[in-house]
Amino acid sequence: MLTIALDAMGGDHAPKAEVEGAVRAAGTLGVKVLLVGQQDVVRRELEQYDGYRDLPIEIVHASERVTMEDSAAKAVQTKRDSSMRVASRLVRDGCAQGFVSAGNTGAVMATAKIVQGVVPGVKRPALMGIFPTVAGNPVVLVDVGANVDCKPEMLAQFAVMGDIYSRNILRRTNPRVGILSIGEEEHKGNELTRAAFPLLKDLHINFIGNVEGGDIYGGTVDVIVCDGFIGNVALKVSEGLVDMFKKLLRESLEATISGKIGYALSKNALNSFRKRLDYSEYGGAPLLGVRGGCIICHGRSNANAIKNAIRVAAEFSGGKVNQQIEEELLRIGKAGV
Amino acid sequence: MLTIALDAMGGDHAPKAEVEGAVRAAGTLGVKVLLVGQQDVVRRELEQYDGYRDLPIEIVHASERVTMEDSAAKAVQTKRDSSMRVASRLVRDGCAQGFVSAGNTGAVMATAKIVQGVVPGVKRPALMGIFPTVAGNPVVLVDVGANVDCKPEMLAQFAVMGDIYSRNILRRTNPRVGILSIGEEEHKGNELTRAAFPLLKDLHINFIGNVEGGDIYGGTVDVIVCDGFIGNVALKVSEGLVDMFKKLLRESLEATISGKIGYALSKNALNSFRKRLDYSEYGGAPLLGVRGGCIICHGRSNANAIKNAIRVAAEFSGGKVNQQIEEELLRIGKAGV
Repeated sequence: MLTIALDAMGGDHAPKAEVEGAVRAAGTLGVKVLLVGQQDVVRRELEQYDGYRDLPIEIVHASERVTMEDSAAKAVQTKRDSSMRVASRLVRDGCAQGFVSAGNTGAVMATAKIVQGVVPGVKRPALMGIFPTVAGNPVVLVDVGANVDCKPEMLAQFAVMGDIYSRNILRRTNPRVGILSIGEEEHKGNELTRAAFPLLKDLHINFIGNVEGGDIYGGTVDVIVCDGFIGNVALKVSEGLVDMFKKLLRESLEATISGKIGYALSKNALNSFRKRLDYSEYGGAPLLGVRGGCIICHGRSNANAIKNAIRVAAEFSGGKVNQQIEEELLRIGKAGV
Repeated sequence: MLTIALDAMGGDHAPKAEVEGAVRAAGTLGVKVLLVGQQDVVRRELEQYDGYRDLPIEIVHASERVTMEDSAAKAVQTKRDSSMRVASRLVRDGCAQGFVSAGNTGAVMATAKIVQGVVPGVKRPALMGIFPTVAGNPVVLVDVGANVDCKPEMLAQFAVMGDIYSRNILRRTNPRVGILSIGEEEHKGNELTRAAFPLLKDLHINFIGNVEGGDIYGGTVDVIVCDGFIGNVALKVSEGLVDMFKKLLRESLEATISGKIGYALSKNALNSFRKRLDYSEYGGAPLLGVRGGCIICHGRSNANAIKNAIRVAAEFSGGKVNQQIEEELLRIGKAGV
């Protein structure tokens, strides 16, 4: 049975959402959950659930807690006994196969990288976002915020990691991989995309060249790589636009009765779309390239989001994604790409 | 009376849309229009309109035409008698006060920059996009594609130009100016935004710091500066998302009668929003920082879009935007900013 270490004190609704999510996951997914946090607080919460003693759940004590206000550096350097760090350490020490946290994203990334370490060959771990498309199949965007000012070699590694994730976890066969740029031709784009283009051409992936911002939702590409600054802007622009639409639709539809009904229906569609955009709502964003796996949830995560993140963490470890990443990067290194 | 030089052979519907747009503009806006293109073709089109002889319209002959397939370099270097270049030259020579084209965007930018030249003090002209917001007031984004790999000093100049445009043409008082970044704090962002931040702080503008992608549509900022690569991605992501929504809404609403009516209503709202996103649909995007002004329209522009672009070109020249840009950049240069 796979074991997942969950930062029980991470999110805005901690430890309530975390404990409920852990109970649901342990009860239905066939995984063991280590709830990491202040023992008495977590135990009190856990005792709300009848029959929790029969579930594969254990509490691991950690005396400190990283807040949303803490800088990543402070979290890593001074809070040595934080729930976040102890959970990550459980993975490093082989007591768990995956780490899940809804805490401060910057602090989770820094902690996982330093404590668990990176997969051999990986230059920089990358945060992956999953976006819905008109075609129905999801597209993955790497990186959505872990690394700004990327080097071309980093984009090539993001392509390898995204390709392997898409095949193994999303079950895409021969995923189409593109570079987010402006203009489709090889010479279009900025310094980074132009330098990355030939590197991606040489990889053993189905590289389809440059794609544009509009292609993220078009369903014509499965994996898109970009600098984390660009990826984060694309994600945030999308979230802002959905909110704008909701207001726009309300205004244009509320004037008539059928419009009101239409608005009620469309609001549901928009809300569900908004949730799919908010990557962590449906299971968290994997930080690709760290040993043992790390799934980062939104701070606002509810119990369902936490349960799904535990599922993704288990799928990730079970799918041998990291092993394949290591092998492929080793092969590329030997080939001198 | 202001005179605007219009590239009559630029857009996908040229010269039909251009000629009709010129007739409407000359008939209602109190501006004179120079229609630049193959004389016989343009004249034949113009003769469709009764009373065109009484309007302030003149045809200026140009034997060549830049196509959408031509590279910017080719357009500039080899097509010396293109309608685009002749129109730009009319501005340089003082025969017109503004240049409007719906032709190949890259070629228009290169032509205007080389033929008309830049406003003294301007390092690089920038393409400005106007975005709708939930609050109703439009926000301007500079740059949306003219310059990739910007230097910090360029973002500072974009801020000065966007601020002056917002005050003079959009009539915003004390426009709020922000840098598009990830995270609000000064130290958040990439190398470019961090280096640009202190430069913008020293300008005589209402600098509100970093804004995020979601703020573009929030109505809490009036002018946003960014590298042209980022700006273009933000624009294209937005366009793609609107198209995605239309499909999503159709699917979720068409199942019921009231849903169908709601969809018909919401489709109109989305289509009108899509047009507002498509900056050129409502008057073209100004290329800020070129002498005499240059308004770039979308290739698909219809007569109404062309008419509006002529209006914007006239407002731009009449508003003394360039004069103020020159004065402000001179002041900054002297102050050693």
